[in-house]
Amino acid sequence: MPTSRTSALILLSGGLDSATALAVARKSGAACHALSIDYGQRHRVELDAAKRVAASLGVASHVIVPLDLRAIGGSALTASIDVPKDRTEAEASVGIPVTYVPARNMVFLSLAAGLAEVVGASEIYIGVNQRDYSGYPDCREEFIRAFERAMQLGTKAGTEDERPIRIVSPLVHLGKAEIIRLGVSLGVDFSLTISCYDPEVQTRGTESIALSCGRCDSCRLRRNGFEDAGVPDPTPYVSRGL
Amino acid sequence: MPTSRTSALILLSGGLDSATALAVARKSGAACHALSIDYGQRHRVELDAAKRVAASLGVASHVIVPLDLRAIGGSALTASIDVPKDRTEAEASVGIPVTYVPARNMVFLSLAAGLAEVVGASEIYIGVNQRDYSGYPDCREEFIRAFERAMQLGTKAGTEDERPIRIVSPLVHLGKAEIIRLGVSLGVDFSLTISCYDPEVQTRGTESIALSCGRCDSCRLRRNGFEDAGVPDPTPYVSRGL
Repeated sequence: MPTSRTSALILLSGGLDSATALAVARKSGAACHALSIDYGQRHRVELDAAKRVAASLGVASHVIVPLDLRAIGGSALTASIDVPKDRTEAEASVGIPVTYVPARNMVFLSLAAGLAEVVGASEIYIGVNQRDYSGYPDCREEFIRAFERAMQLGTKAGTEDERPIRIVSPLVHLGKAEIIRLGVSLGVDFSLTISCYDPEVQTRGTESIALSCGRCDSCRLRRNGFEDAGVPDPTPYVSRGL
Repeated sequence: MPTSRTSALILLSGGLDSATALAVARKSGAACHALSIDYGQRHRVELDAAKRVAASLGVASHVIVPLDLRAIGGSALTASIDVPKDRTEAEASVGIPVTYVPARNMVFLSLAAGLAEVVGASEIYIGVNQRDYSGYPDCREEFIRAFERAMQLGTKAGTEDERPIRIVSPLVHLGKAEIIRLGVSLGVDFSLTISCYDPEVQTRGTESIALSCGRCDSCRLRRNGFEDAGVPDPTPYVSRGL
């Protein structure tokens, strides 16, 4: 049921972008419901990061949906395929990389549509950006708009309610440095987030800490982003030399 | 990798419609890959039915993806909401029923898109029909076409391959009786399928058998369909009086 106060549903991965998208949604004054997907990703520590980010920014609810995408496979993030390391920007910009998870954002947005219906959210926030998008076709605005249209036709909310659900992608045309600056201005603590595709988890006493490899495409984008933004990078990396 | 022989991906629920859709795909000469979703549905015996149908019609592969939609809820099929019984067609045709699972076909088609990319299928078959659709917005052709467009923009297959993936919904404009006649003509053994939302599972010796309630909207559509088609209904119901 839509209420007078706007509710928003935010796809929260535990990474830098979705944390910033959540902060943007929160600034709009909406009650924020976070959704994360436990899809068998090798970098599952990002779910812990998602919980920390949700708690830190304050959400009305946080749902984690189990979905075993390893049954589908086809990606370095869910199958036994090596995550590429130490690629230059030029190398990484050719084609679609093996870390592409088939139809991932489509699956995630579909689940978000379902939960948005249940919690009565009129907006779905997703932190995709097509500038520094690592070559994923499902990060482009053209896809987002086409999906929004399908969602409005295929959901009860789009059919019966006055306000069909919208998809908001506030970062879609921003570069990584701009996203970092935006996040900082909205109070995002990026030390809680993790972007690495292949982190190393170390146990220190009772606490476990995830160290980023610093060498996968996602780490490279993140590191360059902090450097370009002139913001100190709070990411714990495996090697101090990074 | 697309091959010279067409491959098709079929969303197989274990019900009457998707079994017929699989038979249509098989008749086209395509190598058929079946996909079922274990989404926490209360009528989980339909997964056993899906396995039987896949084996009976002959598939190249059958993947079952675990996805716990109970985390999202909002439906009589996944949450503690009673399945409506003994409704007339007129009663059932008002609005969207509580058995609607938020965004279900969108989620299933998204997973199908992912698996289609992995197995190299150029067509996704889905057994939706908008005539006897129980009021679900995601069973309409308008939704299917909009989703297909989004899928073509959001997948690697749609971006890099010569042939983008198509969605085929061969039953979308058929009534239940026509679907049953089509299935019979293609050799579908409907006794292997189950449509009931709230079946009773009985154990007989080492074998368990699912008895359909005969009274939910889905059973009513199925029973009327067999009657209208003039085909004997092979469904085992709880009460012989049905």
